[in-house]
Amino acid sequence: MSLLSWNDTPTKQAILNFMNSTNDKNSQEYIPLSERVAAFDNDGTLWVEQPAPAQTGLLIGKLVEQVKADPSLAEVDPYKGIVSQDPEFMQGLAQQVPEVVIAFLSGIGKAWEGTTPEAYEAEVQAFLAGSMHPRYNRPWTDLVYQPMLELFDLLSENGWRIFVCSGGGRDFMRVFSEQAWGIYRENVIGSAPEYEYQDGQLLRQNKLHGNIALGPGKPEHIYARTGRRALFAGGNGDVDLEMLQEARFRLVVVHDDEEREYVVTAGAEKLLVAGEEGSWTMVSMKDDWKTIFKD
Amino acid sequence: MSLLSWNDTPTKQAILNFMNSTNDKNSQEYIPLSERVAAFDNDGTLWVEQPAPAQTGLLIGKLVEQVKADPSLAEVDPYKGIVSQDPEFMQGLAQQVPEVVIAFLSGIGKAWEGTTPEAYEAEVQAFLAGSMHPRYNRPWTDLVYQPMLELFDLLSENGWRIFVCSGGGRDFMRVFSEQAWGIYRENVIGSAPEYEYQDGQLLRQNKLHGNIALGPGKPEHIYARTGRRALFAGGNGDVDLEMLQEARFRLVVVHDDEEREYVVTAGAEKLLVAGEEGSWTMVSMKDDWKTIFKD
Repeated sequence: MSLLSWNDTPTKQAILNFMNSTNDKNSQEYIPLSERVAAFDNDGTLWVEQPAPAQTGLLIGKLVEQVKADPSLAEVDPYKGIVSQDPEFMQGLAQQVPEVVIAFLSGIGKAWEGTTPEAYEAEVQAFLAGSMHPRYNRPWTDLVYQPMLELFDLLSENGWRIFVCSGGGRDFMRVFSEQAWGIYRENVIGSAPEYEYQDGQLLRQNKLHGNIALGPGKPEHIYARTGRRALFAGGNGDVDLEMLQEARFRLVVVHDDEEREYVVTAGAEKLLVAGEEGSWTMVSMKDDWKTIFKD
Repeated sequence: MSLLSWNDTPTKQAILNFMNSTNDKNSQEYIPLSERVAAFDNDGTLWVEQPAPAQTGLLIGKLVEQVKADPSLAEVDPYKGIVSQDPEFMQGLAQQVPEVVIAFLSGIGKAWEGTTPEAYEAEVQAFLAGSMHPRYNRPWTDLVYQPMLELFDLLSENGWRIFVCSGGGRDFMRVFSEQAWGIYRENVIGSAPEYEYQDGQLLRQNKLHGNIALGPGKPEHIYARTGRRALFAGGNGDVDLEMLQEARFRLVVVHDDEEREYVVTAGAEKLLVAGEEGSWTMVSMKDDWKTIFKD
């Protein structure tokens, strides 16, 4: 029994059919075990990303701390956009507009420069323990989509290795990936700083490890990590387009459930057009999912 | 039954003891499954690296091709060191002296700039198919140490995830990692170029992804890939020192078998000193290994 939280719709059937045909050694669709690499975006694909991605709270809190320590920073972006709550800047951040994310990351890069992984992890733990989602009043890690966890189980049972590839922070996600998704840290890919090993310590540098993992950065990071393209991919925004185009099975989580979750089309325009063309698997949260969250 | 190609020596017992104590939930040595990350160097640790690492042949062949296309290159390093077979340069390369490797990699970076992963892989396949080891007269991938494969099996059975972390090329090793070691490409870490995704293709850049994976670069790459340090590590050269220092179980392959393999101490001076201090596990190829290669 699998995909219990999925309604019996053509979407569920498409997933099951893909599992069957790719397992069938006599089928042209057959995929050898070694090539069964799946990759999923995180925010909006595995958990709620409205009103803003969870990590945003951590990052904004950190930048506000920086401005308190040095008030002159309030005159320049990204600090300016944040302390003034500039709507355009904040919306750009929520929709992961590359330019805004890059400005934001430069502030982040400075803020955590020289930090050890252990110190960073402690900050993330404290943030997650102290943050509730404003609408659901639950910790963010409770807001993982139950149907996606069941899809992970199905993929694992069929020999797929599952990677998460998010534009968000690799090291942020790794703090909760094992508990929330059952996915080892090493299978978490995302935007990440370089670390330098000095005197027995890893120290975070103000420099990215590869490009930011958005748009073309997703296949880049997936190849760097796995030596392959992901043949099964899931996303929900245009920043996932290239990763989805590289895949054979292209799953898009469509946010069309106003009652239980959110209705969002902004930032997903290209994916929605691709979905209309027919060969992509568009998951309607409203129609395809029996439940959204674990009880 | 495990470690069949290992003699019944204290070395074998040390490995088995470590498996037992780290599996024992009542022991202070217990290691949770999620933290069971093991990392191994490749050249000289998993296969023969004398008279020079296998990849050297591919790289030198490529640089010689470059000089043929542009003879003026023969005046500058790394091309000069190679076409003149400068002994100091060649020895530096064999022992992975960082400066020499960096000069060498700059030539390599230029040579393969713009290459797709598929084209590179075809070159590696052709090289491996056409190269025999000068002493053993066998393909390099036959020269993997059988006892180390059995150690991989033992670690896997005990829930360890095995990564190879070599100063050599990540993408070179990935071509044969599944066939030769039974290790998926995504568990191969090494020095690697950045790729840029353009128009549906990954194109190799003349730029490293992170630092070179030697010395401090090994814990850096292991952390970037896994989000952890490797608690079980194996190496054979001083370029593995930092990776080994980060581990709880530190295994060093000592090349002391003139008859069946090679006697080498150059480039391993620091490891041999550490071994004399007692807490490291020094593997004597001569005394600890019943067989070296698979038949």
